[in-house]
Amino acid sequence: MARHCFFVCRHLDIDNTPMDVDPGQHHQGPQAKSFIKPSNSCNLPSSFSSPMSSSMLADYLQRREKLIAEDRALRTDHVRWNYTAAELKADKVVRSIRAKEATTVWGIDHEHVPHPYPGMEFLNGKDLILQTELYEIVSKMPKGGLLHVHQNASVEAKTLLDLALSHPAIHIRVPSPLDAASLETVLPTIQPIPVEQYPATDVVGITDVLYAGGWVPIKKARELFDPALGGPAGFDKWVLSAFMINPSDAYNTYNTPMKIWMKFGSTFGVTDPIIRFVPIQKEYLRMFIRSSISDGISYIEVRTSFFKKYILAEDAKTKLELRELLLIFQEVTNEIKAELKAKGREDDFAGLKIIYNTLRIISSEELELELEQCSKFKQEFPNLIAGFDLVGHEDGAECKPLIDYAEPLLRFAEQHPDIPFIFHAGETLGDGTAADMNLYDAILLGTKRIGHGFSLAKHPKLMQICREKKIAIEVCPISNEVLRLTSSMPMHPLPVIMNQGIPVVLSSDDPAMFNSMGLSFDFFQVLVASEVTGLLALGHMARDSITYSMLDEQSKRTAMDAWERRWAKFVEEVAAMDP
Amino acid sequence: MARHCFFVCRHLDIDNTPMDVDPGQHHQGPQAKSFIKPSNSCNLPSSFSSPMSSSMLADYLQRREKLIAEDRALRTDHVRWNYTAAELKADKVVRSIRAKEATTVWGIDHEHVPHPYPGMEFLNGKDLILQTELYEIVSKMPKGGLLHVHQNASVEAKTLLDLALSHPAIHIRVPSPLDAASLETVLPTIQPIPVEQYPATDVVGITDVLYAGGWVPIKKARELFDPALGGPAGFDKWVLSAFMINPSDAYNTYNTPMKIWMKFGSTFGVTDPIIRFVPIQKEYLRMFIRSSISDGISYIEVRTSFFKKYILAEDAKTKLELRELLLIFQEVTNEIKAELKAKGREDDFAGLKIIYNTLRIISSEELELELEQCSKFKQEFPNLIAGFDLVGHEDGAECKPLIDYAEPLLRFAEQHPDIPFIFHAGETLGDGTAADMNLYDAILLGTKRIGHGFSLAKHPKLMQICREKKIAIEVCPISNEVLRLTSSMPMHPLPVIMNQGIPVVLSSDDPAMFNSMGLSFDFFQVLVASEVTGLLALGHMARDSITYSMLDEQSKRTAMDAWERRWAKFVEEVAAMDP
Repeated sequence: MARHCFFVCRHLDIDNTPMDVDPGQHHQGPQAKSFIKPSNSCNLPSSFSSPMSSSMLADYLQRREKLIAEDRALRTDHVRWNYTAAELKADKVVRSIRAKEATTVWGIDHEHVPHPYPGMEFLNGKDLILQTELYEIVSKMPKGGLLHVHQNASVEAKTLLDLALSHPAIHIRVPSPLDAASLETVLPTIQPIPVEQYPATDVVGITDVLYAGGWVPIKKARELFDPALGGPAGFDKWVLSAFMINPSDAYNTYNTPMKIWMKFGSTFGVTDPIIRFVPIQKEYLRMFIRSSISDGISYIEVRTSFFKKYILAEDAKTKLELRELLLIFQEVTNEIKAELKAKGREDDFAGLKIIYNTLRIISSEELELELEQCSKFKQEFPNLIAGFDLVGHEDGAECKPLIDYAEPLLRFAEQHPDIPFIFHAGETLGDGTAADMNLYDAILLGTKRIGHGFSLAKHPKLMQICREKKIAIEVCPISNEVLRLTSSMPMHPLPVIMNQGIPVVLSSDDPAMFNSMGLSFDFFQVLVASEVTGLLALGHMARDSITYSMLDEQSKRTAMDAWERRWAKFVEEVAAMDP
Repeated sequence: MARHCFFVCRHLDIDNTPMDVDPGQHHQGPQAKSFIKPSNSCNLPSSFSSPMSSSMLADYLQRREKLIAEDRALRTDHVRWNYTAAELKADKVVRSIRAKEATTVWGIDHEHVPHPYPGMEFLNGKDLILQTELYEIVSKMPKGGLLHVHQNASVEAKTLLDLALSHPAIHIRVPSPLDAASLETVLPTIQPIPVEQYPATDVVGITDVLYAGGWVPIKKARELFDPALGGPAGFDKWVLSAFMINPSDAYNTYNTPMKIWMKFGSTFGVTDPIIRFVPIQKEYLRMFIRSSISDGISYIEVRTSFFKKYILAEDAKTKLELRELLLIFQEVTNEIKAELKAKGREDDFAGLKIIYNTLRIISSEELELELEQCSKFKQEFPNLIAGFDLVGHEDGAECKPLIDYAEPLLRFAEQHPDIPFIFHAGETLGDGTAADMNLYDAILLGTKRIGHGFSLAKHPKLMQICREKKIAIEVCPISNEVLRLTSSMPMHPLPVIMNQGIPVVLSSDDPAMFNSMGLSFDFFQVLVASEVTGLLALGHMARDSITYSMLDEQSKRTAMDAWERRWAKFVEEVAAMDP
């Protein structure tokens, strides 16, 4: 396979550069409604399609090329890299499809899609995304590692509801009979209850005027749901709206970064008791890993909360220690690895690790206990525990800044070099607020990566440190947008970070709540929101997700080799497309 | 007056630093709803309000202080600067009022204000801003120069309507009688017409079913406006909605950067014929300068369009050459300067210059003619012509990128070093699009400042050049937000630019269309959207607006001295406040 030096290509064979834009898209007439007016970075100005008319201009164009190259020199996709012919061709194919769909998909009106454009609000644009050829390509891409995802937000809401419906222990309760009005505001309480608490056989439904507020088997509640309120389908709609953030929540009712967290928090409150139940937990985890693998994810580091101190046994009353949860993780991961091995698909999954996390509302004394617990788990499950983190709404009044925990964290870092910090920090619009200042502490405390780092772009010195020390940023595009830190992907500061040469890994954060399962949607949004970023840049982010994972060196090499094999196959397929 | 070194203060007298946050605001209870969770950059963590409990922590805090200082070292307000005691006190007073109002004004619900928060969408939040003590302070601040404003968008819409109503030549026309439905969509045509075209005395109103589409004197049209449609008040509302961008335009109907430009463009179409009429032009300019001075602006560089080749004489039919427009500028500016001098208020106004601009839709040949015209005007009015610019919707399909004009612009730059380029560039969300790439060309072509530069944050090399070559960025906060490049001020990339040490001047762009007259609203939005930026940072931006103006060195010194006198008085007044 011929491999060309990128910089040689840039000057000698300009059509093959990742930055090149199809000249056919330039100077479209006003009738062609397109949301991207392409640059002519590598094209000659229209005023001299004939041979160069002056040496002054020729000199100018040379200086321009040089300046653009210097400006982009720090990007991972613009560093000296020997791209294969297939990679360059695939990148070109993708750019061509993107340019076409900017007009054919995003440039026309669609009923039910307000203001379509590439990189638009995800919850409004999802149906359109699913119709694109570009999404089809992206969904097949090997994504590498998923490094920022919360375990209790990792399985599609509809699937979780099906899981709940399939288990006889799961019951539901509301304060009083539901009607059309209360349906809009009342959240269900859903949880497993012990068999001796099961209601009498002749239960009334939760929409029945005779309903008195007791537990109803969830399956029964669904069957009996008032046909006037939609029957079982109405039940599903109501429950799912409590499991997820809906477009009207994000873009209307709670349309600020502060308000949307109220809704966001409530979704965890509703779903957590269902997941924290061993039989469902196990199946939930299985589905999370399997669906991730289907999306091209070959490794996972999952943030798992140890804030609540138990999971519930099958009898729905015995509280098991959290060690049991780790055993479940181990069992399910090994089971899936064995399963894949039996099919000769070892390349598809390098495993799963846990980032132990608790909530940043606890006291320093409580944190000491958490750190102790984490280190005990690390001793027993050295390959499972990948790091430690503190999570919560950084802008929230009840959440503490990292500086408040500096002392125990400093001590821990000194004593436990085997358990790195992988902190959430800077998930905020604030400038100089506590959440923004968390970035200083995350870095000073030695964080290996930064979760979100949304406000990092404001910090020149911190960006330099991240670049030099290779602190990768776990960028969560759809999460940031749904949680209203940015109104759309083109408004996201990701290009600032990428162009500063800071390693970036794309992550999904809480895909169950954002209805954005897998990594394909996040990759898609990044791809359509920039003319600089192409398939090769996505490939580098996938590579970086393995490079900056917490895998040991040997496993990392194995995972990277597997990824490279899959990537080579993928780009060959894309390159062979005729857009 | 005692002047302290800033860096000494930072370490020895930490309470007086501009960055310091009132410790009383920290760890507020959950009942205190505030939208800014303050940082404790200079405070000790709550875990050791007692004496330091470990040398490890003490060392950590020292490293932290150092890192924060390094990170902010490039900011104009954090460079070594001898602040007076009054400046430091005034900054503290402003921070204290800001923190208070984050709760008392922005932290409570208000009828008719959806989702209030500091730095919220301007058109929704304006009424609340006007109620704040902070706005009152900001409105009194000496702002320095207004360096980015379009002449035909510089007087309040209501005032322009009053001007139109006061002149008998101004007539109005609509295609057919207005009714409740058409009122929502039909734009008026308003312009001066020659006396011989005046309609017969018994005109019918434009809402009258008998109205046949002819000219009606605007005053008459207002009087006769159907009471069922609101009568004269209804007329005003309708006309003003065509003069301006309303909240429902920006945040609903046209809520994307591409769509809002349709509405934006239409406002110029409606107002331009009224302004392009000598008697109104003169009064319009007078009002623009006077209202600017009232807002604390002491110097103006106004972008003036020479795209249309005439202004209309008092007879409403003679087309006068644009030289006449320059004579008007000269006459009105001198008149106001003389007026102020007579009152001993020379400090309040250093004058006005014009940045000659045309539209970036013209051909290269047409550009040659424009450049020639500009240089002729420069010869005749050397003190009036400050520079040259090309304007228009950079993302629009009909607008050409700067690279298309490279050749004539390069030649002109060589031949006319006395007429600098002051280009609009990067007013876009695009990444690598033509509008974004304009930044490379603006800089390579030698622009003295950059209009907007919204996408500059993505370009590390260009930011370095702007910092080193002192290319100031004309940041237009409210314009960027209303034109949907950012959804709110906290989402704006301004802190990225400031923290990179690039000079910033705040500007209003098209205040008539955004209902944001003066510079106070823009300064306010910047002030409330950051905990780092305080009054002293605003002061530096005002200073920079004089430093990076096109005034000659002598006039610059005079203007700066005048500004310093006013600033000293202003900070004394603020420092004396008891918040």
